Order: sequence, then structure tokens, then C-alpha cells
Amino acid sequence: MLGIAVCISSVLCWVSLAQFGIAVCISSVLCWVSLTQFGILPCEGQKRSPAIPGMLSSPAGSNRRMLSFPRSALFQGSAFVSDAQYNRNIPFKTSPEAVRLYRLYNHWMMRTATYFFIFLNLSLALFEEPAVYPLPFLATSVLEVLCLLVFLGRLTHFAKVTLHNVFWKDTKNICIMVAILLSLTDLAVYGVLRLYGVGSIRWSRIVRPVFLINFAESRQIRRAFRSIRNTLPEITYVFLLFTFSLLMFSLMALKLFGERNLQTAEGLPYFRNYLEIVFDLYVLVTTANSPDVMMPAFDFSSWYALFFIAFVIINTYIFMSLFLAVVYNNYKKHLKNEIRKLAYMKRRKMVEAFNLLKEEEGEQFVVREARWKQLVKLVAPDTSSSHRELLLRISDDEQKGFVDKKSFVQLADLLNIQVVTLRIRRHPLARWAPALYGSTPSRLLRRAVRHRAFVWTYDAIILINAIFIALDEESPYISYAEWVFLALYIIEILLKVYTYEPREFFGKTQFWNWFDTLIIIAALTATILNATLKSTMKYNSQQILDIVFILRVLRLIRIVDSIQRFQVIMNTLINIVPTMLTFGGLTLVVYCVFAIIGMELFHGKIQYFPANSNVPHALECGNPALKDSLFARGRYCKNNFNDFASSFIVLMELTVVNQWHDILGMWIQPAKLYFIAFHIVMVIIIVNIFVSFILEAFFVEYSLEKTPPNVPLLDVASLAPLGVSFVPPGYRTVDALLQRMFEAEIPLEDEGPSFEEILNLSPSSAVPRSLSSESAA
Amino acid sequence: MLGIAVCISSVLCWVSLAQFGIAVCISSVLCWVSLTQFGILPCEGQKRSPAIPGMLSSPAGSNRRMLSFPRSALFQGSAFVSDAQYNRNIPFKTSPEAVRLYRLYNHWMMRTATYFFIFLNLSLALFEEPAVYPLPFLATSVLEVLCLLVFLGRLTHFAKVTLHNVFWKDTKNICIMVAILLSLTDLAVYGVLRLYGVGSIRWSRIVRPVFLINFAESRQIRRAFRSIRNTLPEITYVFLLFTFSLLMFSLMALKLFGERNLQTAEGLPYFRNYLEIVFDLYVLVTTANSPDVMMPAFDFSSWYALFFIAFVIINTYIFMSLFLAVVYNNYKKHLKNEIRKLAYMKRRKMVEAFNLLKEEEGEQFVVREARWKQLVKLVAPDTSSSHRELLLRISDDEQKGFVDKKSFVQLADLLNIQVVTLRIRRHPLARWAPALYGSTPSRLLRRAVRHRAFVWTYDAIILINAIFIALDEESPYISYAEWVFLALYIIEILLKVYTYEPREFFGKTQFWNWFDTLIIIAALTATILNATLKSTMKYNSQQILDIVFILRVLRLIRIVDSIQRFQVIMNTLINIVPTMLTFGGLTLVVYCVFAIIGMELFHGKIQYFPANSNVPHALECGNPALKDSLFARGRYCKNNFNDFASSFIVLMELTVVNQWHDILGMWIQPAKLYFIAFHIVMVIIIVNIFVSFILEAFFVEYSLEKTPPNVPLLDVASLAPLGVSFVPPGYRTVDALLQRMFEAEIPLEDEGPSFEEILNLSPSSAVPRSLSSESAA
Repeated sequence: MLGIAVCISSVLCWVSLAQFGIAVCISSVLCWVSLTQFGILPCEGQKRSPAIPGMLSSPAGSNRRMLSFPRSALFQGSAFVSDAQYNRNIPFKTSPEAVRLYRLYNHWMMRTATYFFIFLNLSLALFEEPAVYPLPFLATSVLEVLCLLVFLGRLTHFAKVTLHNVFWKDTKNICIMVAILLSLTDLAVYGVLRLYGVGSIRWSRIVRPVFLINFAESRQIRRAFRSIRNTLPEITYVFLLFTFSLLMFSLMALKLFGERNLQTAEGLPYFRNYLEIVFDLYVLVTTANSPDVMMPAFDFSSWYALFFIAFVIINTYIFMSLFLAVVYNNYKKHLKNEIRKLAYMKRRKMVEAFNLLKEEEGEQFVVREARWKQLVKLVAPDTSSSHRELLLRISDDEQKGFVDKKSFVQLADLLNIQVVTLRIRRHPLARWAPALYGSTPSRLLRRAVRHRAFVWTYDAIILINAIFIALDEESPYISYAEWVFLALYIIEILLKVYTYEPREFFGKTQFWNWFDTLIIIAALTATILNATLKSTMKYNSQQILDIVFILRVLRLIRIVDSIQRFQVIMNTLINIVPTMLTFGGLTLVVYCVFAIIGMELFHGKIQYFPANSNVPHALECGNPALKDSLFARGRYCKNNFNDFASSFIVLMELTVVNQWHDILGMWIQPAKLYFIAFHIVMVIIIVNIFVSFILEAFFVEYSLEKTPPNVPLLDVASLAPLGVSFVPPGYRTVDALLQRMFEAEIPLEDEGPSFEEILNLSPSSAVPRSLSSESAA
Repeated sequence: MLGIAVCISSVLCWVSLAQFGIAVCISSVLCWVSLTQFGILPCEGQKRSPAIPGMLSSPAGSNRRMLSFPRSALFQGSAFVSDAQYNRNIPFKTSPEAVRLYRLYNHWMMRTATYFFIFLNLSLALFEEPAVYPLPFLATSVLEVLCLLVFLGRLTHFAKVTLHNVFWKDTKNICIMVAILLSLTDLAVYGVLRLYGVGSIRWSRIVRPVFLINFAESRQIRRAFRSIRNTLPEITYVFLLFTFSLLMFSLMALKLFGERNLQTAEGLPYFRNYLEIVFDLYVLVTTANSPDVMMPAFDFSSWYALFFIAFVIINTYIFMSLFLAVVYNNYKKHLKNEIRKLAYMKRRKMVEAFNLLKEEEGEQFVVREARWKQLVKLVAPDTSSSHRELLLRISDDEQKGFVDKKSFVQLADLLNIQVVTLRIRRHPLARWAPALYGSTPSRLLRRAVRHRAFVWTYDAIILINAIFIALDEESPYISYAEWVFLALYIIEILLKVYTYEPREFFGKTQFWNWFDTLIIIAALTATILNATLKSTMKYNSQQILDIVFILRVLRLIRIVDSIQRFQVIMNTLINIVPTMLTFGGLTLVVYCVFAIIGMELFHGKIQYFPANSNVPHALECGNPALKDSLFARGRYCKNNFNDFASSFIVLMELTVVNQWHDILGMWIQPAKLYFIAFHIVMVIIIVNIFVSFILEAFFVEYSLEKTPPNVPLLDVASLAPLGVSFVPPGYRTVDALLQRMFEAEIPLEDEGPSFEEILNLSPSSAVPRSLSSESAA
């Protein structure tokens, strides 16, 4: 009977799904079509590209020669160069159709759309039961099916681009397919059971992070996961030793304190049960219950403090450092190997591109100037012509009219070096109103703005502003002062734009100018909005006020930029932000998995009631068992697993580690395993990898600070007429920054091993190479 | 009037001091005499040295030649070599008298005596008011004067050895002299004021750690302090930026939460006062008040959690990692420079020694074999003759009868490589009772003991023992089982000694054999003692029982040694123990200073009463102000600054960081500065240096594991007849281990700069060298 019911229900469910399905298919097709229409069809790029060379100094003849050259080879070559530039690693088919699809696949809009749907899929947990913002089941399932269809579409697109056997061998693709299938099945089963009023678990939600990891775009996160997987064996040995030490100390504690009839501060028995001792001492390793766990024994005899001191030194200081050392060591080792693979891969792709575009010139093969320029324009359509000219001048430093293989191979790196246009543009006002702009008061004003005293004045204003912010808001004078400060800041920005060329002032690398301006504009908008609300509706919007407060304080950050030494540290921090996002992704994956498990296990065990609630047991979080517990006394009721957002915050608190024994104080015994598992995964592994990464990134930045950037030999003075300049420490991609660390290992002439060999490189095969260089150091 | 009183009292005091003085002088002279009598007078060494060569295979002729050679040059040379071996760096006078005094100065007994008095001086704080074990003021002051006199004697000795201008330029010596003077003055003033019943502060106790740092022996601690000093500028910049971030977040918190009328779980106002917010958020950086500080705002609106999450990510994760990165980076940089200095210094000293001992041989200068052997015997009197033979064979690898300059210079490193004698000695029983020892049962027994199954059997026994330990002690069967296990372990040791040669079994490098035997013997002694006490006096001594418990559990550690992979990690840990002692010294210095300040500031503010005490306010630690505080509720009364030992434990708790806001909860506002200062010094700087050290040591061990030791080229097979073998990773000195890291930087032929240049080397001058090697890597 049950079987038949299930069968029927699943059929019913598929029917109902098919209904969404049709709607969803239409919408996704629409979406796909709109994406292709949005000017990303490669043909259009082609159409545009011949139009631009006319503006350049390239000889008209090259235009004609280019036309005679098979366009498909150029496209394929540009795909190779672009892959090399962004360290993409997808073996695409070489047919013109596939290359065009591949270019479409890599288009930023497609990638952004994929990410959008991945995050949409992940954030569905906010709207599903137990929900932060409840949506009907129908709505969330339609959204989920939509996401899954997009993923399927993306995967199909990928299958069209890549070789058949490569596609089916890649576990990433298999994972995505299995995840889609699992999600659909689970959705169907859950939907049907729901129709029949049977409660069930949406267990497939755990597989959602799979999509974040396994799409080709999430290279960095996959690399981090690979790094973790590779570190596991070493970590396991240290962890076993650590566990052994923990068990030994617990045994000693049991023998020393177990029969003393001691009591904790809450009057509970102290150190009686072996498993509880192990858990208490595990918590002590994280220092979360530091003096409390010691106090009863310490009160009994001062000498027992030595036991805990020895425990903390051995387990907290030495073992935790050892974990960091193991993680860091493996991180470096595997990162080195990964980067070496990337570098070889890049070299090989550039060689492939060269082979596609080469022509014979005397005894060697070269790429002629015109074709080279077309290629660069295809690969980086938004570079300025002078930038292109500069790249050419570096690649063809003897101005022979062609680029040889050695220089060609460097192109991918050259494209990753940020170049800023120094063009001394005239100020627009100088063009529109030259008399006014060039008049003596105007010139004096501009000189004043450029003077150091101008910066100092505004630093002083910021400091005064800080004092005003700290003072009480209620006094009307102070709230008027806020308008004065806002006006002063706006005047500052206007003066600067008046003095400096606006496009230069808002250049891509002018982080602080952007920051200032955005903050001020946002503050102005919010303040005006608030004032309007206040005057018209006699009402202060709390959200807007909060934003105003935050913006007002953020404005003060500006002062950091005035001090040279701080600038260096800040720039380092800003530079590593993109890579930190990788860890954000990693953390997101772990949090999602643990949050979903946590919600299934602990949902509803604890209720939060506002302070003035009259519900019985409101103070005990709706759970009489919590009466007089530290949990209730600390008013921790809102730390629960009742919805996705709360779970994230609880997990964040567990990551920070403190008081976690209290947060989990009320759970039943086996639930402790959940928290210990989270601690091991998150704190021992991921946080340590994060720390390793910050250490390594800081060391790289630190050594970059001293060594000149790896700009090819070129007279920098010769760049001046081009009006461009290198900006050394900025790299467009994270990989480029990391690669910087190990690139000297590969000699320029070396083409490296073949694709297959590269993929199978292991860190141990890297050892002789790296060791020889280390021993040379 | 007061002036006169003070004058009189100080005179009186000097008189009374003179009284101790005489007694103390006599005792210290006695001590000095006894030290010199103890066979460490160099003349005696000389007398012995000609007696030993007769036992060696050296030609009799060399004896005569040696006698004709000026002995003083040999002594001077051996002093140079010994300095090079132990990386000592004292420019001693070259007169024979000074060299003899210098050898005396470096004698291990003199050094041990110095350390003994340094620690005696430091531990006086245990006996002085406020005392753990009170001693009369007279006794502690006599001891202190004795210590100071010993220090003065040691300093005088040093002054006799070294050059005059060097002595007076060295800040170390000036520091010691000032510290002695300050201590004496303070002691006198305090003594006199005490006589007149005026309470005063023994402020000079803070200078006591000066002696630990400034004697020549504490090279390592000084190096760590130098490393800290050099790191300070960089740390300061990061710290300022961190403080800025803290202040900004506090300002935001004040604006966001200040006017919400929120309350903490204890009903106190929440985030009203700017300074309190700064402090609360500083505590949050250490994660000590992690969820508590967030809960009121989180209860008000879930969105406010974002503020705290951003705060924790930026300040706890990024800034704290940045501190580690800065400390680690500077640690490496300065360590490299220090080690480079040491290596140059060593090279130079070996060259000096060579120049003293060289003779002409053909076109080059060499050191002849006989003189070389005498030298080695003087430098390392306790090496075996075969070890010496081995060193000679390495240094004179072509057996030409002399050692050339290049080989001679390596001698210091050779002496630091541990060599183990593999002599296949016959078992003593085989010599005394060959028939019995060679009989079939005996041989079978020995084969059984050597079998792997023997190890497995005992591993199983250990596991069963662990279970028995965990079970209840009360059952008589289990307490009988303890005797069985003890017997089994003793049988194991006896069997092993029967099978293996005893001197080999208890070799210097057989850590685990020593460990086992000592634990078992101690456990046997303690168990018998306890049983005797129990049967005769019907009384269980708690101390002995505790020791028995601990020993019983420690026995289980043995199982770690059976697993290869754990052995590696354990050996790494055991190898870095000596260097960790440096950090022990560093921590001791910081703790002493803070403990003495803490005692002066907070002494008596909190009282501890046993649980059943009837004193009023016993539950509030004798301080009514603490009623209902978290401090009293957590029963933290014993965490006070009432004596030296308690202060150390409180400081340890503050180092571990958790709950420190509670520990200091009851202090007045400015006292928070004390705790913040301690946190900055101990946690941000010293713990990070410790972590850097563990990371670096682990990386060095890790790379050593793979590279063969830097043993000079020598056919290892040729060593077999000598019956010795190298033990690669063991280094006798910490410096030798560190030096291993950078030694390849200095080419063998390079004699290095002069002494003065070496001392002035800076890390920045090291940069080109290290950078070139880095960029080559």
C-alpha cells in the first residue's frame, strides 16, 4: 500500500513539477536569449574590432592582411591568451563554433548570472521552513527548479564547449549532475509527502554548496578545498597525538580530582565522569572555560594549578601552534605545486596561441605586429590604444615590426600588470572656460588645494568632527554642526575635482577618492532623507539614522590615508581582499552545511521571546530544562538554530570559540559531537588556513615592497610620451599575485611538460626542484 | 628633621648591612674557593692532559714536540675553538693568566652557580612580604646580599678576563652594576624605614630580572629581547592602525547602541560610555566576552549582529594575524642577521685559533696531527678516543698527518654534531657467565624479546592498564592488578637489559628507555612507600598518592613511541624543548615584573577563604563591593595578587586570555591599563614570537627530515671499524640548530668581516645577500 501511495504521489509530484517546469523553461530560455542579445555575441565583437584600428597608427595594409587571415585561428588564439591571462583551464574544442561558444561561456555576464543563481539557490534556505522570511513552498520550489535548470543549462553549454571524454571524466561535472538529480528527487518526494501532510526532511539542501564549489569559476575555492584534502593526513597524525595527550590528561584529572567530592561554582559535581572530563579539557584547549574549570581544584590545593598550566602549555600553546605549522607548511607546499601547474599551463597555452598565429620571418617564426594588435584587441577589448602601444613596445623592443616567441609568451603576464594612463589631460574647465580657469584667483586656489596644508586642514577638520560625533547628539548646535561638516567635505571634493582632472581623480586605482566621494554622497542623501522624514512626518527612521551614523564614522577613516606608513599596511590589506573572498566562499560552504544540519537537529529546542514577553518560561528560552542554566542567565536565547540566519550567527560565535560550552550547555550529550566536529573543521583547519594565507600574503607583499616589479627590461623614461605608467603592486587576478611568488622557478625558455603531465604533477615531484632552490638560498 | 632621621637611619642600616656583609663575604669567599678547589683549576687539567695520550695510538714523538710548544698558545687556541663551538662571544685578553681565568669563567660549575644565585634571587619574592612561605626580613636580606655579592664577584671575574675598554662599553655590565647598586640602596632604605616602623615599597625587586638577562650566559634570552626591540617599530604601526580601527568601531557602537537604553544580562547599562565601549570591544578582540557583549544589541535587532561580525573579522582575524605576520617576519629577518653574525664570528675565531697553532708544511700553513689532538682533548675532554679519531679522519681525510686551514675551520661544527658510539660491546653476562648466556633457552628468550610481537604484547598490556586505571580504584582486585602491571613493566625492563647491552640500552640518545625506567622506578618507590604507610599508619599520604596516579598515567605515554609517525612529531617536539626554555626565561622576566607591580598595586584587595569559612563576606572574597559580581559568582577569590605564586597564576590566566574581563572586573578603572599592558606585552608580542618560533623550528625540522645532514664528505662505511656513527638531527646547542638554517649563505673560503664589522651588521645590510638568494629560489 505504502509503495503504491509513494508511486502515485511521486507521479503526481512530477506532474506538478512539469507545470512549474514549463514556466521555468520559458523564463530560463528568455534569460538565455536576453543574455546573448545583450551584445555578447562574438560576431558583434568582430564587427566592432575592425572599426577601431583606423584610430591607431597601424598601417592601412595590415587591415587588409588581417582580413585574409582565417578569423577562426585568431579567435582560437585569443581564447588561449585569455585563458592564460586568467589562468582558466578548460580544454575546449577547436572548431570555430566551439570557440565562439567558449567565448560566450567565459563572458562576464554569463559568469555573473551563474553566480547569481548559485547564491540565489543558497539563500533559498532563508525562505524555506524554518524561514526567516517565510515564502510559500510553491514559490521556493519554483525558484529552486529555476536555479537547477540554469545550472543544467550552464553544464550543457560547457559540454558543448569541451571535449566529450574530458567532460565525462571530470568529477566536477558528475558532481553537479548528481546534485541536480538529488535536489530534484528530494524536492519531488518532499512536495508529495507535504501534499499528504507527512512531515519530512529536506536533506538535499546540504548538497547546495556543491554548486558553489564545482562550477569552473570557483577555481580558488576548489584549490582551497584541495589544499585541505592534501593537508588531512598530516593533520590527522597531529590530531591523534593531540587526542592522546587529551585522553592522558583527562585520565590524570580523573585520578587526581575524581574522588575529592569537589563542586563547581554552580554546585555541580566536578570532574567525576571520564567523558565529561575529556570534553571539559577539550574546551579548555580552546581556552573558553579557562579559569572556571580550574577553580575548584585550585581552591582545594594551589599545587593543582600546575596540572592546568602544564595542560595549557602543552595543548593550547604547543599543539595548536603545531596545527598551524602543519597547515601552513602543507599550504605552502601545495600552493607552490598548484601555482607551478598554473604557470606551466599558461606557458603552454601561450605557445599554442603562438603556433596558431605565427608566420615565417627569416629563420624564425614570429607574430607580425598587425595580427598581434588584433589579438590584443580581442583579448582585452577595453584597453586604451596607448596601453596597447606600450605592450607592443615591450614585446617588440627593437621595433622590428613583429613579436618573437619569447616575447609573445610573456603577453599573458603583461596583460595582468595594471597600467595607469598618465595622459596629461587638460581640465575640462580649462577647455570650456580657459579665461576663467587660468585667471589668477583660480590658479591661486588650485595651488592652495595642491599644498600640503590643505590636507592638514582637512585632517584637523576630521579630528574635530570625531570629537563632535562622540559628543551628545541631543544638543541642537551639534546637529547643526553635522551640516557644516558635510558641507566642508563636499566643498573639499568639489575643490579637488576643480583642481585635478576629473577622470584622473576618479581613476580605477584611486581607491580613496572613490571611497570619500561615495561615503559623502551616501551620507548627504541619507541625512537629507532623514531630515525630510523628520520635518514632514515627525518621525526618525531607525534604519536611516543607523546608516547615517555609520557613514559619519566611516568618513573618519580618511585620516589613515594621510600617514604614509599606514597607507602601506592598508594597501596590503586592500590587495588581499579578493583572495579573502575565497575564504569567504569556503566559510560559506562549511557554514551552510553545518547550519542545515544544525537546523534539522536543534530546530525549535530554544525559543526567543522579547524582554517584555509574558509567555511562561520566557526567561528560560521557552525550555523549562534551562532554568538557572548559564545559558538562560546570560540571556542567550536568541542563539538558536531556529532559522538560517540565526544558525549562521551561532556558528560565527562558535568560530570565535568563546563561551561555546555555554552556548551548547543545554544540548544533550551526543550533540556535543556536532560542536566538536564544527570546531575541528572550522577553527583547526579553516581558520588556520586563513591565518596561513594572511601570513603568506603579507610576506609576499613585504618582499614585493622591496624588489622592483618584474617589468620586462624597458627604459621607463621611454614610456612618458605614451602617457602611461606601470603601477607595480596591483595585480588584476589573485593567481597573478600568487604566481609572482614562484614564477622565477621556471626558466623562460622552458615550455614545460605536456598538459597531461602538468595535471599529474604532485608536490613531491616538485620537491627536488624547490629543495635545490632552498638549499641555494 | 626628616633629612637627619633618614641620614641616621641609612648609616644605621649600612652598619647592620655591614654585619651581614661580613658573614656573607666569608661565605661567598668560601663558595668561590670550594669552586676552584673542585678540580676546575686549569692547571689540573693540564696535569691530566699529558697522562691520557699514552693510552692513544699517537706517536710518542708528538708528546715531546707538544712539550716544546708554548702551552699558552694551545690554551688560547682551545679557548677560541671552545668559544666557536658554543658561539660564545667574549673578547678575552690573550695573556696566559687571562686565558686561564677565562677557562675558569666558562666552567660549567661557575655557570651553574651563577644561574643558581640568579634563580635564588628571583625566588626571594616567594619569601618576602607578601610571602607564600614567610621568612624573617633578616633572612631574606642576607640571602639577597649574598646573591648580589656573587653577582659582583662574577662581574669582577669577567672584568679580569675581558679588555678594559670593552668591559666599560658593554651596557650589560653597566646594567648589572646599576642593578646591584639599586638593590642595595633600596634594601638599606627599606630596612631602616622598617626599623622605624614606616611602611615602604621594595621597588627595587623589579630590577631583579635584569640579572637573568644581562649575564653573558643568557645569550638566547637577550637575543629574544633584541628581536622584540627590533620588531617594536613595525608592531607599533600595526598597533596604531588597530587602535584606530578599535576607536572607530567604538564610536559607531556608541552612536548605534548608546541611546537605545539597552541593558546587559546583569542589568547594567549597555554601551553608554565611550571609554567603556573601547574596553569592551578590546576584550572582544581577544574573544573573551564573545557572545555576551553582543547579546543585548542582537536581541534588539538581528541586523546588529553584522556590526559584531564585521568587528571580529577585521580585528580578531585580520589584525591579530597581521600581528603574527609582522612578528614572524621580523623574527625571521633578525634571526637571520643574528645567525649570520654568529657564523662569521665563529669562522673568525677558528681562523684565530688556526693562526695560533699553525706550522709551515710545504707551501701552506697547517696544524699537525699531534697538536690538533691535544687541542681537541682540551676543548672536549670527555670525548672518546675513537670519536677523536673519527674527527681527525674527517679533518685530515687524505691521512697526510696534518689538518689544513679549510678543514680546521670546520672543527667547531664537527664538535657540535652528536656522535654515538656503536661499539658492539659484548653483554656483561656473556663475559661473566658465557655458558649460561649462550645456552639455548637464553638465546630463545633473547630472540623473543627482540621480536616485534614482544612490543605488541606490551602495547596491549599498556592498553589494558589504561582501562584498569580508568575503572574505579576502590575494588580490591583492581588495586591488586596495579601490582601485577608494575611487575610486568619491571620484567620488561629486566628482559630488555638482559637482551641488549646495558650501556647501549641506557645510551645518551635513548630518551624513551630512560623515560620508561625512571617512571617505573619512581612508581615502584612511591607505591611501596604508600603501601607501607597504609599498612603501618593506616593513612594515605595525599601527595604520594597523587604522584603515584600521575606516574601511572605517564607510563601510558610509552605507546606513542610504538608508532613511527608519532615518533617523528614527538622527536621534533623533544628537539625544540631547549629553545622553548628561552621563552620560559622570557616569560619569567615579564611575569616577574608584572607580578611585582601587581602585588604592589592590588595586594590584599581580595581575600580567599575556604568554602566552610564563617568570616563575613567570605563568599564575596572579603570585599563587600564584590557582592553579586561575576567574580564572586564564579568563585574566583583565589585569583588574587596576594602573593608571588598567586600572581603568577593570575598572570597565566590572563595570558590564556579567557574571562580576563571578569578576573579584572572588580578593579577600579585605571587598573584596566595594567591588564591591557600585560595583554599587549605577553599575548600580542611574546606569544606571537613563541608561535613564530614553533613554526620556524617545525619548518626547519621538516626540511631537515628530507635533506641529509651536512656531514662533510666522508665514506660512511669507513666509520664502521671506528665503531661510531653520526646521529643526524641531534644538535648539542640551540644555536647550532638555528645556524643550520642559514649556514649555506657563507661560502667556506670566506673569512668574513672583522670583529667590529660583524657586530655592526644590520638586517638591512643583510638584505641584498638574502634577497638575491630568495630571488634565485
